[in-house]
Amino acid sequence: MKQFNIHPTDKSIANSIQQKIDHLNKPKGSLGRLEELAMQVCMIQHTLSPSLNHPCHLLLGGDHGIEREGVSVSPREVTWQQMINFTHGGGGVNMFCRQHGFDLSIVDVGVDYDLSKVEGVINRKIARGTRNFLHEPAMSEEQFNRTIEVGCELVDDCAKKGCQILSVGEMGIANTSPSSIWMSLFGDIPLDECIGAGAGLSNPGIEHKRQVLNAALKQYNETMVPSDENAIRYFGGFEMVAAIGAMLRAAEQGMIVLVDGFIMTACAIAAIRLYPAAQDYMIFTHCGDESGHRRMLDIVGAKPLLNLGLRLGEGTGALCAFPIIDSAVRMINEMNNFDTAKITKYF
Amino acid sequence: MKQFNIHPTDKSIANSIQQKIDHLNKPKGSLGRLEELAMQVCMIQHTLSPSLNHPCHLLLGGDHGIEREGVSVSPREVTWQQMINFTHGGGGVNMFCRQHGFDLSIVDVGVDYDLSKVEGVINRKIARGTRNFLHEPAMSEEQFNRTIEVGCELVDDCAKKGCQILSVGEMGIANTSPSSIWMSLFGDIPLDECIGAGAGLSNPGIEHKRQVLNAALKQYNETMVPSDENAIRYFGGFEMVAAIGAMLRAAEQGMIVLVDGFIMTACAIAAIRLYPAAQDYMIFTHCGDESGHRRMLDIVGAKPLLNLGLRLGEGTGALCAFPIIDSAVRMINEMNNFDTAKITKYF
Repeated sequence: MKQFNIHPTDKSIANSIQQKIDHLNKPKGSLGRLEELAMQVCMIQHTLSPSLNHPCHLLLGGDHGIEREGVSVSPREVTWQQMINFTHGGGGVNMFCRQHGFDLSIVDVGVDYDLSKVEGVINRKIARGTRNFLHEPAMSEEQFNRTIEVGCELVDDCAKKGCQILSVGEMGIANTSPSSIWMSLFGDIPLDECIGAGAGLSNPGIEHKRQVLNAALKQYNETMVPSDENAIRYFGGFEMVAAIGAMLRAAEQGMIVLVDGFIMTACAIAAIRLYPAAQDYMIFTHCGDESGHRRMLDIVGAKPLLNLGLRLGEGTGALCAFPIIDSAVRMINEMNNFDTAKITKYF
Repeated sequence: MKQFNIHPTDKSIANSIQQKIDHLNKPKGSLGRLEELAMQVCMIQHTLSPSLNHPCHLLLGGDHGIEREGVSVSPREVTWQQMINFTHGGGGVNMFCRQHGFDLSIVDVGVDYDLSKVEGVINRKIARGTRNFLHEPAMSEEQFNRTIEVGCELVDDCAKKGCQILSVGEMGIANTSPSSIWMSLFGDIPLDECIGAGAGLSNPGIEHKRQVLNAALKQYNETMVPSDENAIRYFGGFEMVAAIGAMLRAAEQGMIVLVDGFIMTACAIAAIRLYPAAQDYMIFTHCGDESGHRRMLDIVGAKPLLNLGLRLGEGTGALCAFPIIDSAVRMINEMNNFDTAKITKYF
């Protein structure tokens, strides 16, 4: 696959940032997570005066061969129906993009439906859904490489518009299944502990999902040389692999990357496996209800910003967290310090 | 004290609201806390199409006689210095009011400094600080009644501008002390378990605060007929009692009331003790770091929206939570339902 040139953020500026934060007109540490966020954003942008210009949200859609095994409560046609719905502005992702001024790109990376004539859908289709990873790799090496490139190209388009902060969301029925397998492989956690109800499976449904995913993992272990890249290609959806490409490219470009949800967290962890420095650029925004999400966050030591019980996907948690990051940036840019405020410095 | 006419929200509309929420284009319950918030806001406004017109923030300032006992790490002059600083726009409360479009009123209810000539400070001063409740009631009955009225008048001014959502913040050095005592009295929790570091006391400082507050509570018990109203008057700051008046008047007017922080939560609990129905109108926005804040929230069974480790006061947590409530309102107003979205209804 394509190589990325991702630098860890430059820690030499950390002391200057901390000094600026500590000299703001407030008891030291009293703005809690906002102070940590300000630190991270300043480090990413290598500045004491950060900005969040032109926020962009990529909504990536794709279908999954594994859906044929009945691992999801929803049928695959919901993917294309929702993609069309998003173009009409009535989805969760639309509302929150409008609310927070995100430039929304709705991208077909691998939906099992012809969306090429649908206005408002960007066509980057690799194939009409992945193959069924119960029997074979979800995508070929060529498809994998191309899908990573798609993620990069989408980010490059955002960068051209001046984007400094990117969030990535997904629409892909059955995509908690590959996410659970990645969690198991990348977190070294028994697969059964990584499998949850997705968008609402019953207990027998979860048991069936367990059997299917265990069989798939067995087949993978028997037929492939285990490697991070192989695991990503074997199980990943097109929307997920494109998300990995997008996150890596965004980190390479020095953008802030907002990560939410079980599926996007799985993609972020995959990206971090490939390029550990990418984590410096990521803000983990939300801990959803999917069983194991918090455990997955623990793999990379991430503390999510919000816990609102969201499990809609689409990147909605990341969008809802944006104003908190905006607050952090306003804090370091706009808050008086003890000199200008003429306050008795009380620590 | 003044009587309030606060009605519980009308639960008869709950089924219709839930039906509307469940028919939105998303898996049932998948927007978590946003769905609960939408329910509450709709109930408060008795509508299926709620709004958040003209948000207002009251920043109430007052000084405390108990500060003379060295229960706070900061000296009392920080109260007036910060009040002036807020008029220059560089405080935490200013940034977040600007960010979220809140109309900010900076009100002197009882600051120990002449702020009458300071442009941007609304003068509702009752006295230059309360009396020292280690020895006597913090305020007289007359002062108490007048302070409740001040809170009402401030809310009436907001109502005239069309305000539907009110948040209340405070600036008052030493006001964690009365808050801890109220928590103990209203939550039936031993006082020692209600006392924390405030804005940054050391361990010996906390021990001293414990001794002072225990002595004050003993004196109260020996000299007063215990009642909710007496406890509020005996220990409360002018900014705190005005906050109680404001919360009750806002509930009476059918406004949404945002509550954050240790001190404002103590005021909310006092208000709920006086008028239990007032809680229907309150959204508890943030759980801060002050020891016991979560326990205080438990007194009224409140689940805070955010946990960002904020302990600045000023109502900053409530302001930071506003966009989440806005998201909930957008959800119920703007999200497609399964009919308009033409989606296979998957539950």
